[in-house]
Amino acid sequence: MLEHHDSTVRVRYAETDQMGLVYHSNYLVWFEIGRVELMRSLGFDYKQMELDSDTYIVVVDAHCRYQHPARYDDLLTVRARILQAKSRVLKFGYEILRQSDVRVLATGETTHIACNRAGQVKHFPDKYKTAFLSLAGSPDPSVK
Amino acid sequence: MLEHHDSTVRVRYAETDQMGLVYHSNYLVWFEIGRVELMRSLGFDYKQMELDSDTYIVVVDAHCRYQHPARYDDLLTVRARILQAKSRVLKFGYEILRQSDVRVLATGETTHIACNRAGQVKHFPDKYKTAFLSLAGSPDPSVK
Amino acid sequence: MLEHHDSTVRVRYAETDQMGLVYHSNYLVWFEIGRVELMRSLGFDYKQMELDSDTYIVVVDAHCRYQHPARYDDLLTVRARILQAKSRVLKFGYEILRQSDVRVLATGETTHIACNRAGQVKHFPDKYKTAFLSLAGSPDPSVK
Amino acid sequence: MLEHHDSTVRVRYAETDQMGLVYHSNYLVWFEIGRVELMRSLGFDYKQMELDSDTYIVVVDAHCRYQHPARYDDLLTVRARILQAKSRVLKFGYEILRQSDVRVLATGETTHIACNRAGQVKHFPDKYKTAFLSLAGSPDPSVK
Repeated sequence: MLEHHDSTVRVRYAETDQMGLVYHSNYLVWFEIGRVELMRSLGFDYKQMELDSDTYIVVVDAHCRYQHPARYDDLLTVRARILQAKSRVLKFGYEILRQSDVRVLATGETTHIACNRAGQVKHFPDKYKTAFLSLAGSPDPSVK
Repeated sequence: MLEHHDSTVRVRYAETDQMGLVYHSNYLVWFEIGRVELMRSLGFDYKQMELDSDTYIVVVDAHCRYQHPARYDDLLTVRARILQAKSRVLKFGYEILRQSDVRVLATGETTHIACNRAGQVKHFPDKYKTAFLSLAGSPDPSVK
Repeated sequence: MLEHHDSTVRVRYAETDQMGLVYHSNYLVWFEIGRVELMRSLGFDYKQMELDSDTYIVVVDAHCRYQHPARYDDLLTVRARILQAKSRVLKFGYEILRQSDVRVLATGETTHIACNRAGQVKHFPDKYKTAFLSLAGSPDPSVK
Repeated sequence: MLEHHDSTVRVRYAETDQMGLVYHSNYLVWFEIGRVELMRSLGFDYKQMELDSDTYIVVVDAHCRYQHPARYDDLLTVRARILQAKSRVLKFGYEILRQSDVRVLATGETTHIACNRAGQVKHFPDKYKTAFLSLAGSPDPSVK
């Protein structure tokens, strides 16, 4: 089963729109918080990866299904896991849960490739690859 | 063939990130500009639809594939079309093109349902439905 | 001396720009987190104030001085205090500090008036006014 | 009298908040559009200035007074002018006007210094300085 990591986010006023709900693009920002904190929990500091290894994790695909709206001031759990890890491709899965009733508000996936600062595709540095692969070993049947 | 509508967006400094590219969630904001301007070109004013008909078009699914990065100050075309229109569901397709070389930077789709202010699902008001359906009549084979 | 309240914010990737620093408008978003958490620490729930009292705290003036740049992944303290409280006007002061070295990165102030949903200026409801006034009693000489 | 430059912005849904108005930090983003387009109208391409001269215009002070709210879909004029130009400091003034009734919605100022990529303060390159100074020659009495 894939390990996941939970982060907490509180909905900001700036993230709402005039419908009284969270504007939908903000979920992608929360997904990013989820994957950064997942990596931090594994001992990787994304900031250092950029600085030390000239490796940037570029988003090539993002998908989000919105089931129930998040609202201002909601405390949310961003649950992130690695769905797939190859030498150049990394795929994350996410669930956004409202903490008050543990309801799933949204699910999604993002796919990433490794690039250098100049934008050229590269392999993930070995130390990252090993860890990513170990995490993505056995698929979680609960993740679509 | 599905009609499409083209809008122009210039990339803002605020939309870039420290990778030197546009942060990926902003494409969803541009998609929205595309569909609002598509509707305006058909004679619908989304603002008035909210006010007059208590009808909000809520996003239930958003998907974006990023092919080439948009950069600060790029002039972009947001090409939007209606992929599917049912009595309660509306699906849009998008392409983001860089105007300088007409390169496709990203493609995507969003799916929407009609809700009232209280968040209850409703049918699209008749005048909107008729127009949406007429537009979505014959599928464009170039749209995946 | 004015009481202050400290909140913690971690800089998001989405908040950076291509200069490699935080884009400057995000400091206003952090100021808002600071004043909402300050009010929460006093027993006020801003969300409930909107719902129960039809009272919205509208920004009429915002000022920020940027001294040192915040960067991606920095842990920041948002220090907020009430500078002035009148029956219709509320003024907050802020400092943004980087937690790693307790350096002040920015300072600022925002001024607010109370409005109803329709945008008409109103007095703050009594229970809020009393608390705001008590907090703003004696000026802090360290706040400009 | 100081020359000004007018740019047009249409309010995006993403820029509104649950009060039904534009969230206040977005005015700083519009100010930036105003100053970039002002510079473009003078023959300067800010993007090229960053690339060619390693000169970044860093915000050190931003102030905005909000007089009337901007709303979704409003067409706005961002009026920008140079208030002050010194060898290392540049100050811009702004007015945000709603085009439908030419009402001033907000006014503001931002102050900037020139830095290189590493964040060190520098003089503006000569070709920029000369142009900025010529523009800021005689104060406009209508600008506060």
